Amino acid sequence: MNQIKFILLVLACYFPLVSSAQTDYNLWLQYDKIEDSDLKQSYLKSVKGIKVLGNSKTLEASREELSKAYNSFFNQELETADSGDGLLILANIDQLPANLSNSVKPDLENINSEGYIIKSATQDGNKTILITAKTDIGVLYGTFRLIKEMQLHNDISNLAIIDSPKIQKRVLNHWDNLDRTVERGYAGFSIWDWHLLPDLIKPEYTDYARANASIGINGTVLTNVNANSLILTEQYIEKVKALAEVFRPYGIQVYLTARFSAPMESGDVDTADPLNAQVKQWWKDKADEIYAEIPDFGGFLVKANSEGQPGPNNYDRTHVDGANMLAEAVAPHDGIVMWRAFVYSEHDPEDRAKQAYSEFVPFDGQFKKNVLVQVKNGAIDFQPREPFHPIFGAMPNTPLMMEFQITQEYLGFASHLVFLPKLFEETLDEDTYVNGENSTVAKVIDGSLSNKKLTGIAGVANIGTAKNWTGHPFGQSSWYGFGRLAWDPYLDSERIAEEWLKMTFTNEEEFVDPMTDLLIKSREAVVKYMTPLGLHHIMNTNHHYGPGPWVSNLSRPEWNPVYYHKADEEGIGFDRTISGSDALAQYADPIAQQYSSPETTPEKYLLWFHHLPWDYQMDNGETLWHNLATTYQEGVEDVEEMVETWNNMEEYVDEERFKKVSMLLQIQLKEAKWWRNACLSYFQQFSDMELPESVPQPEHDLEYYKSLEFPFAPGIRPSWE
Amino acid sequence: MNQIKFILLVLACYFPLVSSAQTDYNLWLQYDKIEDSDLKQSYLKSVKGIKVLGNSKTLEASREELSKAYNSFFNQELETADSGDGLLILANIDQLPANLSNSVKPDLENINSEGYIIKSATQDGNKTILITAKTDIGVLYGTFRLIKEMQLHNDISNLAIIDSPKIQKRVLNHWDNLDRTVERGYAGFSIWDWHLLPDLIKPEYTDYARANASIGINGTVLTNVNANSLILTEQYIEKVKALAEVFRPYGIQVYLTARFSAPMESGDVDTADPLNAQVKQWWKDKADEIYAEIPDFGGFLVKANSEGQPGPNNYDRTHVDGANMLAEAVAPHDGIVMWRAFVYSEHDPEDRAKQAYSEFVPFDGQFKKNVLVQVKNGAIDFQPREPFHPIFGAMPNTPLMMEFQITQEYLGFASHLVFLPKLFEETLDEDTYVNGENSTVAKVIDGSLSNKKLTGIAGVANIGTAKNWTGHPFGQSSWYGFGRLAWDPYLDSERIAEEWLKMTFTNEEEFVDPMTDLLIKSREAVVKYMTPLGLHHIMNTNHHYGPGPWVSNLSRPEWNPVYYHKADEEGIGFDRTISGSDALAQYADPIAQQYSSPETTPEKYLLWFHHLPWDYQMDNGETLWHNLATTYQEGVEDVEEMVETWNNMEEYVDEERFKKVSMLLQIQLKEAKWWRNACLSYFQQFSDMELPESVPQPEHDLEYYKSLEFPFAPGIRPSWE
Repeated sequence: MNQIKFILLVLACYFPLVSSAQTDYNLWLQYDKIEDSDLKQSYLKSVKGIKVLGNSKTLEASREELSKAYNSFFNQELETADSGDGLLILANIDQLPANLSNSVKPDLENINSEGYIIKSATQDGNKTILITAKTDIGVLYGTFRLIKEMQLHNDISNLAIIDSPKIQKRVLNHWDNLDRTVERGYAGFSIWDWHLLPDLIKPEYTDYARANASIGINGTVLTNVNANSLILTEQYIEKVKALAEVFRPYGIQVYLTARFSAPMESGDVDTADPLNAQVKQWWKDKADEIYAEIPDFGGFLVKANSEGQPGPNNYDRTHVDGANMLAEAVAPHDGIVMWRAFVYSEHDPEDRAKQAYSEFVPFDGQFKKNVLVQVKNGAIDFQPREPFHPIFGAMPNTPLMMEFQITQEYLGFASHLVFLPKLFEETLDEDTYVNGENSTVAKVIDGSLSNKKLTGIAGVANIGTAKNWTGHPFGQSSWYGFGRLAWDPYLDSERIAEEWLKMTFTNEEEFVDPMTDLLIKSREAVVKYMTPLGLHHIMNTNHHYGPGPWVSNLSRPEWNPVYYHKADEEGIGFDRTISGSDALAQYADPIAQQYSSPETTPEKYLLWFHHLPWDYQMDNGETLWHNLATTYQEGVEDVEEMVETWNNMEEYVDEERFKKVSMLLQIQLKEAKWWRNACLSYFQQFSDMELPESVPQPEHDLEYYKSLEFPFAPGIRPSWE
Repeated sequence: MNQIKFILLVLACYFPLVSSAQTDYNLWLQYDKIEDSDLKQSYLKSVKGIKVLGNSKTLEASREELSKAYNSFFNQELETADSGDGLLILANIDQLPANLSNSVKPDLENINSEGYIIKSATQDGNKTILITAKTDIGVLYGTFRLIKEMQLHNDISNLAIIDSPKIQKRVLNHWDNLDRTVERGYAGFSIWDWHLLPDLIKPEYTDYARANASIGINGTVLTNVNANSLILTEQYIEKVKALAEVFRPYGIQVYLTARFSAPMESGDVDTADPLNAQVKQWWKDKADEIYAEIPDFGGFLVKANSEGQPGPNNYDRTHVDGANMLAEAVAPHDGIVMWRAFVYSEHDPEDRAKQAYSEFVPFDGQFKKNVLVQVKNGAIDFQPREPFHPIFGAMPNTPLMMEFQITQEYLGFASHLVFLPKLFEETLDEDTYVNGENSTVAKVIDGSLSNKKLTGIAGVANIGTAKNWTGHPFGQSSWYGFGRLAWDPYLDSERIAEEWLKMTFTNEEEFVDPMTDLLIKSREAVVKYMTPLGLHHIMNTNHHYGPGPWVSNLSRPEWNPVYYHKADEEGIGFDRTISGSDALAQYADPIAQQYSSPETTPEKYLLWFHHLPWDYQMDNGETLWHNLATTYQEGVEDVEEMVETWNNMEEYVDEERFKKVSMLLQIQLKEAKWWRNACLSYFQQFSDMELPESVPQPEHDLEYYKSLEFPFAPGIRPSWE
């Protein structure tokens, strides 16, 4: 061995130290060193230098991101260049010289203001790559896309990528309180350090913006829907402004939640009646005050007359009155109002699943054009599985915004591995049939079904101060996947899983293939071990941690699990057909008809729509009780399989994440068994039937499961609730 | 240039990437690469291989720490070896072969069970380094010491280090609640993730233990002194056990806070009377239950009959009755009780500064021998400056434990740079005179003054889930310095500052010298801009954030700042001489006499002991009002100087920490001015005198400062308060 070879060997030994700097703080932006030398050579040939035309913080962020990635991929600097082979050009279309802008003119018609074009071209015999767009933000998105192509080890020698987001408002909702606790947050404290804002700008704020921009998220609601009106005071607006300035170069608008009674709490007005002139003026002044500080402020998200929150009903006014009053205040500034449809009343004996529809559908067409009605994916509340919300498709003249929950309030907190894009995809793909076949929820949301001008999608964030942002290392995949589906609601969740795994861990097939499979199956697993066959809302009280099918002592009937499963000696399930609550009538006809009989209802929704006897015969010829029990057991077995799969992944994952996920999977397995045991013990009282042989006997008796208490489970509501 | 040189150059270019992995998560255990090649060669010559004799998790931890450090210093593996030149031998004395154990026999007499010996020796012509001790923990401490010698770039070619801790119980107190909020915590959530314990063992737990072991901290109280009795239930003991198992190899015992009313809250007994047989039995059973799970459990810390906490007085029993009852429960297991002396009553019209002494001193000699009475450094409550607590020296027959506060409840939270070891040192160095001159507080604490068998020192932790543990990057220095002074209360804080700076940032003199100076001066700065000349307890209500000298509306008189400064037209200050509360009489005579007259009272304590007219003539010939104002102004100018010094440090510090500290110093400067302006505006009403020319006029009027509200300032007490 000559000396050079020896030193190269030494060099090779040192590098693992560098690349082991991979930490889950970096999310899917790990930018792992490209080890394959052919691939590396081909990338280095394609990108030798960078030229940025134009001048803005957004273009600067694009250049910095590329430099960071390049450095990390290749251990070498990306140099600025003016011409030559391998030039990467970044510019929005207005900055391009004529020859270049002409070359992309036809493509331009196929992108919107946030879309981008990435194109390989040959100029004077030199190969170049051009990233261009109608706006600098488009260029930033294109930049992240080019980086991603390299993260995925795709060929970049001949690029022709054209892409645009299909939904306009792609927004995270943070249920973060001003005291830094996070309602339904399982990843530590709120990342917003209000006390030290605006003076301390943490690097996390920029990294949050980078991560969101990389997947196209363009808005963030900073505060809890259970709102505190202090956020609207001068003291806090100054803090919000500081965050907005960090986010602006990344194309992210900030929004706030508006507590409907804020005018009263400010001490300025003694009512919050939306038709009162002083109240209207108060909100207009407030909007002007905010926009003076934050010219690109996004607008307000409002939870009104829901679960104790104040709202227009307090003054015998309607949701339309309330939303339109706020909409008028922000309209001069191009702001929007996201008005939540999550309402149900303790005074209304009607099936809770029907109430939001009953309340909102009659208002169709009455909202101002800058109002989006924000509707949860299902009619109850972010359960492991719900049929799509019947409002989707039922308000053709109202922009409807989808609200998904990324934080796992009802899906095992941050300790269960559940890949939520699979759930999101299921809802988006469901067919409302309102304009005939293929009237999917996705088409409602992206506006294509009814030619909507304003479109939006929201995800309740699972982000906190945890060193890896989401607590569970795999919680990151749901944040990532939400962003991807917000950009394009027709994406396949399997593709999302695959790309996230590659970007976050490794491109090794032996890792990616089995883990993609694991991610995709993980959602069905949680449905099986928590709420199989259409069961829902049978969790424990307040913290929503663990099973509580026996709970029947809460003041509001529709807060009790017994309200939802209605188990008794006769059977189990909620009859939502015409013989029951008739919630089914809120769906368009092909569904309403198909689901009216248990025989033609998909088994996954069986007990959502039907109350059936324990010995009801299922498709496989077994009784309902038998299938209920075996499905719970299958859920447990699915988690056992996840454990096994993960154990084979040790060589592909850094030690810290490997161990953490191993421990978390053991928690998930323990809790899957707990759900199975507790729920089957409870339901068995009524079925009075033996467990199938394949299902183990519960370790404890029912009284034990009922006795468990968790007063300090995380994410509990603020005490006003 | 030949090829080898070229490649070496390339190699050199890569290395910055490695060493930039320095992050403040690693605290003072950065283990920066040794760049100086002479030094590196000398170290590599001294340590070529390692041999560990014996087998324990503690020895394993020692070996791992050395490997980690070696790898990081030299980019090379520390190999196991059996003999030869440059062998590093780790073993406790029982494992050493006779020739080696004989060589350290005389030194052994000079160390206690936690001490260590590090010795260079020549064996068969080979140079070796021996780290030995009476216990494996001693070996671990010696290991951290050897590593530190290298971090400090000291010569290790001829070592003869013998060191032992001077205080037995060196304990952190975490005021962490079970919901993960931290009372007076400014660094995020509690690091104890109770919900996921015992199943999820986070790497942070190990790193916490490493950091503490590296400075000799050997105990941690996991829970808030404002205690919740749930921590004593089976469900939580299992969680505590999991932490104890992580900490055990690092020599750290866990302790819990015992809520005095726990027997009642358990539902087992209907009283908590410490003389009741059932209550006694309950605590014995509880201790047995805990020790069955955690054999090295440390014992209990108790806040009783203080600020609303239950205690023996509820049953007309004394603190002795309460403490001894608990002491009996843990005595069979070698546990201890740390009983806090922080008591003051709303029903006692006596000067609050006198009450703890009045209550506890009569009990001297009556506590069981496994009880430590834990006394705050001063008689009020962790103010920027207090005279030492008069209990120190006044209870010669009772083991007294020092309680310092590392978290900056009254010193600017985690946004002010204040190097607290300077404060701790001041208290430890103060002379109580109880056994004549040189009866320092340090001698009370280490037991040497009255030949105490049991000694201890506690620090209220400033640790949370912040990525750098303490929020302010310099908050780490106070944690570090507390540990160092707990090990040796006679250490010089300047030396502590210097070593911390070197280990945490860089050994460059141009950094270390000015920054040591900055750290040392930082404590006096905060005294000047918050509470100069002996003022105290003039902060705002509840959160204790910012100035509130005007506060007079709180239900308990001694919670109001006006109670402490007593400013009026006649003057300012608390007369604690014989003409006032006579608190001074609680001190031994040389002090009592000297401080009885303002002329002979050190100016730093002037207004602590005297109420003086505004025109009182100070040593410099100026009026009290003049000096009060100029001292506030000096505090502001000190911070301006800190800003300037820091600005010169940019080249020595990574960008992230540099920027963060810069921003925090701006907050500190803003708040220093706020304190000056608010306090002088308030006091000027009474002095009716002009501000000296050197002191700028406040930017706002007094009403403005009084109007400021911070309902969500961090670290507020749990709501039961």
